[in-house]
Amino acid sequence: MSEIAVIITDMFEDVEYIKPADAFRKVGHELIHVGLTEGKTVRGKKEGTPVKIDKSVAQVSAKDFDALLIPGGYSPDRLRVDENAVNFVKEFAESGKPIFSICHGPQLLITAQAVKGRKITGYKSIMQDIKNAGAKFVDQEVVVDGNLVSSRDPRDLPAFIRASLKKLEG
Amino acid sequence: MSEIAVIITDMFEDVEYIKPADAFRKVGHELIHVGLTEGKTVRGKKEGTPVKIDKSVAQVSAKDFDALLIPGGYSPDRLRVDENAVNFVKEFAESGKPIFSICHGPQLLITAQAVKGRKITGYKSIMQDIKNAGAKFVDQEVVVDGNLVSSRDPRDLPAFIRASLKKLEG
Repeated sequence: MSEIAVIITDMFEDVEYIKPADAFRKVGHELIHVGLTEGKTVRGKKEGTPVKIDKSVAQVSAKDFDALLIPGGYSPDRLRVDENAVNFVKEFAESGKPIFSICHGPQLLITAQAVKGRKITGYKSIMQDIKNAGAKFVDQEVVVDGNLVSSRDPRDLPAFIRASLKKLEG
Repeated sequence: MSEIAVIITDMFEDVEYIKPADAFRKVGHELIHVGLTEGKTVRGKKEGTPVKIDKSVAQVSAKDFDALLIPGGYSPDRLRVDENAVNFVKEFAESGKPIFSICHGPQLLITAQAVKGRKITGYKSIMQDIKNAGAKFVDQEVVVDGNLVSSRDPRDLPAFIRASLKKLEG
């Protein structure tokens, strides 16, 4: 089974972490929570869901994992100011390993300059940012372009999870 | 004195509204709070500062005001999904009237396609989005480019307020 890094910090969209995480664990994948400070508990935006950070993003490499999950909410906005977080995501994008991005997730990919020429979707508010970054924004529940699986918002979670699980199967 | 529209919704950065608003009122300018729903009270992100919406953005025009203030926080992210808010900001930008933007304020200007070729600053997290939109990102406490006055974050408020007041004088 796969070891999946979840890059996450405070103000994440609760269900965009909870539902994929549950689905991944259910079939035997392992989640490693990567954030700004090892051991810290970060919390979701709406429900305050607690998530303990297993590893500081400064201490990990894309080599350590098989896939990356980027939940949305305001977590990506807070992570993209951190150079280590941006470099980790960039390294992941370059590795060709699966990346699962939902909602505001593409904000991190944009700062990591990882979307140019790619087909991707994301939350409506960042549509112009996605287009300006040179990506093709596709307005559908899930977009799969090579290693990159993306969805728009919580309503797309079933399709997002389905496509992500399929990608993990290889 | 000037009639200044403040475009604002929930999760605004409290001080980025409070401090410019106080400074503008102190010298006699009038503030009109423009948001998604007339009569609704919106609240700041950190301190829960209440702001009553005077006018729905669907019912106003740039013609009704002399200048526009865009406080930051997550308010601009929530406003840029609203077509009326985007059109209002676009109309303002085209009018040449002063626009005061701080922190995440440029997110609204980007969706309104109003920053291409302009010198502007904003919060570090959206630096790449500002560059991708074709603007020149300048990393300083306040940037004045024609009608557009912009600052990075709450630490820049004294310079932001000084430059905005000067723009209103002339």
